[in-house]
Amino acid sequence: MPVVKKATLLIKNIGQLITMAGPVPRIGNNMTELGLIEKGGIAVAGDEILAVGESEKVEGHAPLAEGCTVIDANGMVVTPGFIDPHTHPVFSMTREKEFEMRIQGKSYMEIAQSGGGIRASVRDLRTTPVEVLMEKTKSRLDRFLEHGITTIEAKSGYGLSTESEMKQLKIIDDLNQLHPIEMVPTFLGAHEVPDEYRDCRDEYISLLINEMIPAVTGEGLAEFSDIFCEEGVYDIEESRRIQQAAADAGLKLKFHADELKSTGGAELAASKKARSADHLVNISEAGSKALAHSGTAAVLLPGTTFSLGGKQYAPARKMIESGVVVALSTDCNPGSSYTESLSVVISLAALQMKMTAAEAISAVTVNAAYAVGREERIGQLRENYQADITMWNMSDYRELPYHYGVNLTGRVIKKGKPVVER
Amino acid sequence: MPVVKKATLLIKNIGQLITMAGPVPRIGNNMTELGLIEKGGIAVAGDEILAVGESEKVEGHAPLAEGCTVIDANGMVVTPGFIDPHTHPVFSMTREKEFEMRIQGKSYMEIAQSGGGIRASVRDLRTTPVEVLMEKTKSRLDRFLEHGITTIEAKSGYGLSTESEMKQLKIIDDLNQLHPIEMVPTFLGAHEVPDEYRDCRDEYISLLINEMIPAVTGEGLAEFSDIFCEEGVYDIEESRRIQQAAADAGLKLKFHADELKSTGGAELAASKKARSADHLVNISEAGSKALAHSGTAAVLLPGTTFSLGGKQYAPARKMIESGVVVALSTDCNPGSSYTESLSVVISLAALQMKMTAAEAISAVTVNAAYAVGREERIGQLRENYQADITMWNMSDYRELPYHYGVNLTGRVIKKGKPVVER
Repeated sequence: MPVVKKATLLIKNIGQLITMAGPVPRIGNNMTELGLIEKGGIAVAGDEILAVGESEKVEGHAPLAEGCTVIDANGMVVTPGFIDPHTHPVFSMTREKEFEMRIQGKSYMEIAQSGGGIRASVRDLRTTPVEVLMEKTKSRLDRFLEHGITTIEAKSGYGLSTESEMKQLKIIDDLNQLHPIEMVPTFLGAHEVPDEYRDCRDEYISLLINEMIPAVTGEGLAEFSDIFCEEGVYDIEESRRIQQAAADAGLKLKFHADELKSTGGAELAASKKARSADHLVNISEAGSKALAHSGTAAVLLPGTTFSLGGKQYAPARKMIESGVVVALSTDCNPGSSYTESLSVVISLAALQMKMTAAEAISAVTVNAAYAVGREERIGQLRENYQADITMWNMSDYRELPYHYGVNLTGRVIKKGKPVVER
Repeated sequence: MPVVKKATLLIKNIGQLITMAGPVPRIGNNMTELGLIEKGGIAVAGDEILAVGESEKVEGHAPLAEGCTVIDANGMVVTPGFIDPHTHPVFSMTREKEFEMRIQGKSYMEIAQSGGGIRASVRDLRTTPVEVLMEKTKSRLDRFLEHGITTIEAKSGYGLSTESEMKQLKIIDDLNQLHPIEMVPTFLGAHEVPDEYRDCRDEYISLLINEMIPAVTGEGLAEFSDIFCEEGVYDIEESRRIQQAAADAGLKLKFHADELKSTGGAELAASKKARSADHLVNISEAGSKALAHSGTAAVLLPGTTFSLGGKQYAPARKMIESGVVVALSTDCNPGSSYTESLSVVISLAALQMKMTAAEAISAVTVNAAYAVGREERIGQLRENYQADITMWNMSDYRELPYHYGVNLTGRVIKKGKPVVER
């Protein structure tokens, strides 16, 4: 006789239950299919979803465990916990002075000369004690969670030495154990060329390939390898070499691609069967074609364009219409986009890239899960999936982009446990 | 012998105490003068500020009353409670469907024909019970307060009949008693011409002048009269007539001016000695000159341009440089800008209008106080001013525009009483 699972958590009376059940990933018109159930309910057993459906049926379906938590959603909107597929959360020093210099019209060069940019973050990270970095990162993870985000991809990339990259990845690993939020770790040793290798960049590339990647994979500290593939950082051939070494070492691939110029980064990402190509503000026609109906998702970061005071956003509509898998992310980082809110990113995606609320929700649930390689576990509310659930203080999901700049998250549940109540 | 006032609240160890003490209102370069005290302290007696200065001196200055609340700010930033000088907070129905129609490229006419626009809000307000409006408005006031805003200007304008305008103003009056937030009430019967007067607009103008304004002032329900002075709504001559009647009845004046086109609204506002002209996206050179060094402040609403998906923002830099008093506001309303966060407005002001953090803070404290006519009581942290204080979870005030889309408010104190703790 099969063991009957009992519900440890029951959410009833959900106004709009957005399950996202359906094809993975979502492409084209499928992005608007939310699997929406009105008057819905969810039963959870332990850390997994037991049943999803009409509230009355779910209530009748599952026997309740002793001490079962019962939540009356009172007409709220409920979605899968949001997933942020591109963040740089491990840093201490904030860079608000650079932000202000940009507002005042200072150029990238002037800011770099005044000691700003990624290298400023590298200098700071290398010399900041682990305890301080842990504390600052933890406060960011708290904020992600408070905004209804239950999983983030988290990159290294402010170390740029074997020791300091490992320092960042170990912080991610340690916080993964200590904090309810789930992090997908990505090695980004190729975020920049560090100061000490400016005149001998090939040596740094050798270090990446021969020392850093083996060290990271040896300790199992990353699932993905990412690279800043861009004119003036790592060119196409360098990116191909470094990412081939990472793939050979067993890492899945991501690319920062075609952000500032079209250099063929999207095409490279698709040809290397990367899980995602990210940024893509200047993606070419050929790049878009390469991504369409490939296995490589496009992770778009409208907050970065916004926060840099830019005018040009990634061509989301065109990509959606041509069959590219589109996900959205904060790009949370101290230089070009300091936010832990996917809600504000969804408002920007609507207003600047003309994505509807439904498309944007697809982009931060099922498609974001795909972009981090966890689509079989998270991003949907369905039987046997992990019980990552966000309840929203709204009665129509379309309020998300419209009611902008505020946090409409109500309760957040991670692996079946309530972790935020607002 | 004078009575020695004792401190009922003491805030010590403030990292950056932004007092805003100085000239009122702030013009030009004076907008960057924050009256900043490092390692500052504030002593409060009852609902008024007793002393402001270096933490140690303030701690030594005032005897503490029994049961005095002592708060260690632990290096936080502290500012005057923010003031939002232009809101439409009394409504029930949200209009997220119109927002989505705009994203999908529908025109203003198509939205109006599908039953949207201000008139949709009017139909809804007229038929919604007072209790429902009270509850919905209260939840918005809570959200303003949670974002560090301690005073808002609040307009009627969804009634457009004597009865329904009074209904809105009475709700504002009632909530002013019940809620910690302070509201400055504004009569906006001239927000639109209601459906039933479309073919006889002069009759509605007569109603405004002969019935509505006397009814409102008779019950003392408004301090200001505002009007939507714009092509297709109320033209310059109509605006002049209606606002003259309001001024004669003892109301101070505000104008929605030059939002969609330049029609001379700013010039009219200055000539009528209005406290503010608001929107001003299309202000003319002459309009800007008329406002410069006049008594009329410019209340700018970048969230409205943003939320309508527009490209053109009010020319803030030009106005600041030519001597116009600039304030900032959310324009919180269900049609064109649904937010209760001045923080996101400050990010927009920085990124889209090139206002620095210091200028933006001036614009939501001392200049906003001026725009609502309460500059002798709020907007600054100085002796004998009302103890409206916001404590921020940041160590540098420049984090406010930079760390965007999130709420960095820590504690909020209104009239000497802690009302929010986050």
